[in-house]
Amino acid sequence: MAHNSNVDAATAHRIRVLITGGTFDKEYDEIGGKLFFKDSHLPEMLALGRCKLDLEIRTLMMIDSLEMTEADRDRIVEQCRTAAENRIVITHGTDTMEVTARELAERVEGKTIVLTGAMVPYKFGSSDGLFNLGSALAFVQTLPPAVYVAMNGCYFQAERVHKNRKTGTFEETDTQGR
Amino acid sequence: MAHNSNVDAATAHRIRVLITGGTFDKEYDEIGGKLFFKDSHLPEMLALGRCKLDLEIRTLMMIDSLEMTEADRDRIVEQCRTAAENRIVITHGTDTMEVTARELAERVEGKTIVLTGAMVPYKFGSSDGLFNLGSALAFVQTLPPAVYVAMNGCYFQAERVHKNRKTGTFEETDTQGR
Amino acid sequence: MAHNSNVDAATAHRIRVLITGGTFDKEYDEIGGKLFFKDSHLPEMLALGRCKLDLEIRTLMMIDSLEMTEADRDRIVEQCRTAAENRIVITHGTDTMEVTARELAERVEGKTIVLTGAMVPYKFGSSDGLFNLGSALAFVQTLPPAVYVAMNGCYFQAERVHKNRKTGTFEETDTQGR
Amino acid sequence: MAHNSNVDAATAHRIRVLITGGTFDKEYDEIGGKLFFKDSHLPEMLALGRCKLDLEIRTLMMIDSLEMTEADRDRIVEQCRTAAENRIVITHGTDTMEVTARELAERVEGKTIVLTGAMVPYKFGSSDGLFNLGSALAFVQTLPPAVYVAMNGCYFQAERVHKNRKTGTFEETDTQGR
Repeated sequence: MAHNSNVDAATAHRIRVLITGGTFDKEYDEIGGKLFFKDSHLPEMLALGRCKLDLEIRTLMMIDSLEMTEADRDRIVEQCRTAAENRIVITHGTDTMEVTARELAERVEGKTIVLTGAMVPYKFGSSDGLFNLGSALAFVQTLPPAVYVAMNGCYFQAERVHKNRKTGTFEETDTQGR
Repeated sequence: MAHNSNVDAATAHRIRVLITGGTFDKEYDEIGGKLFFKDSHLPEMLALGRCKLDLEIRTLMMIDSLEMTEADRDRIVEQCRTAAENRIVITHGTDTMEVTARELAERVEGKTIVLTGAMVPYKFGSSDGLFNLGSALAFVQTLPPAVYVAMNGCYFQAERVHKNRKTGTFEETDTQGR
Repeated sequence: MAHNSNVDAATAHRIRVLITGGTFDKEYDEIGGKLFFKDSHLPEMLALGRCKLDLEIRTLMMIDSLEMTEADRDRIVEQCRTAAENRIVITHGTDTMEVTARELAERVEGKTIVLTGAMVPYKFGSSDGLFNLGSALAFVQTLPPAVYVAMNGCYFQAERVHKNRKTGTFEETDTQGR
Repeated sequence: MAHNSNVDAATAHRIRVLITGGTFDKEYDEIGGKLFFKDSHLPEMLALGRCKLDLEIRTLMMIDSLEMTEADRDRIVEQCRTAAENRIVITHGTDTMEVTARELAERVEGKTIVLTGAMVPYKFGSSDGLFNLGSALAFVQTLPPAVYVAMNGCYFQAERVHKNRKTGTFEETDTQGR
């Protein structure tokens, strides 16, 4: 696997992974009967995928993306800017993924950033999480610097993506905006 | 999602998927107590991944890659050559994945071909199949024409990859050959 | 399998299964991001268990047991009374399972009735549902006429069971009541 | 839960569980591509079932029941005879479950012994193991002293059961023998 990179040798191949929560990481609380966040399932998913990439994983927050504030987004932007790595994957709730993607596109330069998430919690048998994680980690290694959303097997430019709230899938926004 | 492609509009975005079997698709025969092949789980896996890519899926064979003959490989090469699509994913047993990859690299030109598989059958809870499929479909959209193996979250050039039979993971072959 | 039964030959071995909903049957709505009811998973679970019992399955309602009204309980009682079968399993939410059990114990005579449920939806990988269903169907074949709760591998008399809301497990109520 | 028991108070409610292997506990060896035995999944299954029974678990062997020798069966008989508990569940491969059951029926008296197993390894998503375990633990608490097979939601007397090798289900043997 050969990457061209401007950073120093130690971090040239390393990918940073930032965890922000989202459906991806929701669990079922059997006492309260509700969905909640505990620990991220990312390490478990990477083990399942027998992933051998050099990853630097950091949990920034564990929240539903509908509750993400401007301060939370500032923090994500700051983490992307200051990361030693040039390639970053962010796990994120799907509801406002496009908002965070656009903010990152405006405020971070020269890095390949891929946001991904899941429609169904990983712990449910029917989750798309493992598939999406596999694709996000592949896209981040191969796409040129810019911000992308990786969902449904596809990648989208941050500036031209929205979630279709009826179908639950991501779509390319046309030139008139939707 | 924007692809540059030399083929005509109808097939410009389409990805061909060729199924050859492998651990990926093995099932447990509860009467005989053995692993066997029935139908491919690929459609089920794509549904789980909420995949919205334009795919043309073809089952070429359903075999263990240790039993793959030269005639089988000729057939795979032929299918890649004659496919209308320029981007092709092949699901394949891991034991001889590198052999088929090298043969394709020598005999097919101008196409991006990605081979992938799984260490554990998809139907087992602990399979890496969904992760690998997600990454293979991402790599095939973004890598330049050549033949690759996508396993363990990584991609490898066909000419420089081998399976480490002790660890069960894929590794880059050094310039001396291993 | 030999059952002693007072009913006629056709229904002597048959077990009635009444579905009322509960965590057992909750699904994840990937568009709304909430848990909801659609169809019962009971047929799927019985197929998984390779169950060969003669069952007569009836869905009475699909509700959270916290929302179960007195009218709903009247209906369950009526169904148990009028059923041709002497052995009845009821799937039920765990939150008010003891309430329904006691009501049935007071109002239905001469039948073996076993209530069961799950702490985690069947569709979650970590569900106790299949284990509980297996035990409930076994208890209903072997216990003398009375009303029971089958949870945590145990069976409890309707008059002397309560759910420990802190641990999420069922316990025998002592003679002073808790 | 009330048990009538002739043993002393400490073991009155306790159930002994003897593990002998069988499909139940088979795993997939991802390096060799074969099914094999490692550790029993029983503790994991009991945790999943939120089982609160007082169990004394002992692994006697981890073998395919087709390879079970007369010496192995002697050992199982001996363990049942000398166990302090009057109620015993044995996990066992399905292929010769009826053979072991009949041997136990001839050689062990005054105890309720229930053999169970699975048609598909627990680690496969489609296993009947958890369902069977739930039913076996229920039957052992409620059936009178004798030896039984618990499969397919049913219980069978050791003397009158056989596995239908075409369908993979257990059936009652008629008075002429099959």
